[in-house]
Amino acid sequence: MEIINGKNLSQEILENLKPFFQKHKIALAVISVGDDSEKGVFIKQKQKAAAFLGIEFLHFHFDDKISNRLLREKVNEIARRDFIKGMIIQLPLPEKININALANVIPIEKDVDVLNERHFGQFALGRSMVLPPAVATASYILEKYRITFQDKIFGIVGLSRLVGLPVSIWLSQQKQTVISADIYTQNPSQLIKNCDIVISGAGQPNLINKNWLKDQSVVIDFGFEKKDGKVWGDVDFESAKEKASYITPTPGGTGPILVAMIFKNLKELMESNFKVKNRSRQLTTKK
Amino acid sequence: MEIINGKNLSQEILENLKPFFQKHKIALAVISVGDDSEKGVFIKQKQKAAAFLGIEFLHFHFDDKISNRLLREKVNEIARRDFIKGMIIQLPLPEKININALANVIPIEKDVDVLNERHFGQFALGRSMVLPPAVATASYILEKYRITFQDKIFGIVGLSRLVGLPVSIWLSQQKQTVISADIYTQNPSQLIKNCDIVISGAGQPNLINKNWLKDQSVVIDFGFEKKDGKVWGDVDFESAKEKASYITPTPGGTGPILVAMIFKNLKELMESNFKVKNRSRQLTTKK
Repeated sequence: MEIINGKNLSQEILENLKPFFQKHKIALAVISVGDDSEKGVFIKQKQKAAAFLGIEFLHFHFDDKISNRLLREKVNEIARRDFIKGMIIQLPLPEKININALANVIPIEKDVDVLNERHFGQFALGRSMVLPPAVATASYILEKYRITFQDKIFGIVGLSRLVGLPVSIWLSQQKQTVISADIYTQNPSQLIKNCDIVISGAGQPNLINKNWLKDQSVVIDFGFEKKDGKVWGDVDFESAKEKASYITPTPGGTGPILVAMIFKNLKELMESNFKVKNRSRQLTTKK
Repeated sequence: MEIINGKNLSQEILENLKPFFQKHKIALAVISVGDDSEKGVFIKQKQKAAAFLGIEFLHFHFDDKISNRLLREKVNEIARRDFIKGMIIQLPLPEKININALANVIPIEKDVDVLNERHFGQFALGRSMVLPPAVATASYILEKYRITFQDKIFGIVGLSRLVGLPVSIWLSQQKQTVISADIYTQNPSQLIKNCDIVISGAGQPNLINKNWLKDQSVVIDFGFEKKDGKVWGDVDFESAKEKASYITPTPGGTGPILVAMIFKNLKELMESNFKVKNRSRQLTTKK
């Protein structure tokens, strides 16, 4: 059994990204609305990684009294600044904010979280330049540990907008065998026990224990819930590690990798944008 | 056991749509490229339904020598005609045609097949006005026969672009329990045997027989393959009907309903467009 050390992996990814961002001085914008006391920790993690990479970090905070229209205008202004190459809308937003209309203001080439609906459509059809961060994280872990997809059954626990849904779409897009379960599922443990690779984003502390798991399964946990002053994953780590071959702890598992993936996406979007620009330059030269 | 009579259901749907299209005289455009000898039958089915509804049917056929750029320009010209309220790109296209770039030329409000990538993104995020036709068909059948989703396990056989992928996304979006299988799946029959509702679009004649099916399962077959001068579904109908509670035959099952759903989508897109127009009129009046 191997514990997947998210902190080390994240550091390794960031180290590899550093030369690129030393060459290209750019900024990342994070937009948040209303009370940041809960989401502040996530903003700080990104800020720290940006500082490490030499990326200018711009946090735009708006009062929760802002109207949807004004917020979209402000985000649009941010989007137009050329030196800002990546944009993040820090979730959750206040309920009155239309997150979808807002996300559509982010240009695809700066949409590191794949929140824009056209970008998400490209992803769902298998032809986005980058993957939603949770998908990129799962993909990175599987690749890093050389876990092949061959003959594997994937289990998805929780079909949330940011984890289960995109992971399920990604695997379906690749014609993989998937069993997905959510709150309507009767006896989810019985179904998930068929699975070789379990990816969870249910937000239910300690939901998944060894009785859910096939022997030698890979367990990737995106759950992150605060309770009694502690952070809990969906997976009961102490129990699950008796069965797992690879397992992410919480905290220190998927979380730090997710942050690194945002910056990996930023680099990849910038690079694909260089290519487009070079191509149009060539076309212009030809004329 | 009840055989789902697609022809009768389709006729019923079209009858219900008729009053709307008698009131609103519009046109549907079908775009095809290259040899139509294979796809001609699908174009004719749509033409027949359009004639029944009093919808003008415009078939734009292009030579397979046409360039991608010129084809997009032509489709864009078609899109700009106000009386054309629905547009279909008849698949398959010749290989050299970039189907995605072409589909993106279709405005969402005329995209009855949900091919445009932003439209598909809206669908994947659960907020498109209409569903991809295969999804609309499955949804219609389940609703018509009052098959509730409660405690059900869905099985998807084949994760194709037009059937399995959108159906899987639709169910994941609704947090349903899904088991999906494709060519990489070992012992797919064992997995699918857990399922209460089996939706298939594998394109493998007679792949699914009674040994794949749970007792009293609902079987919805989108397979449609020609072999030995006959049309075959994915499901071995004679064998499967021993187990199924409801089952679609091939031909005469999902096919005619799919055609009707295109026109149902056309109506729904037009109606949602009326609403948007009325709303902007009200806003103007208020000023």
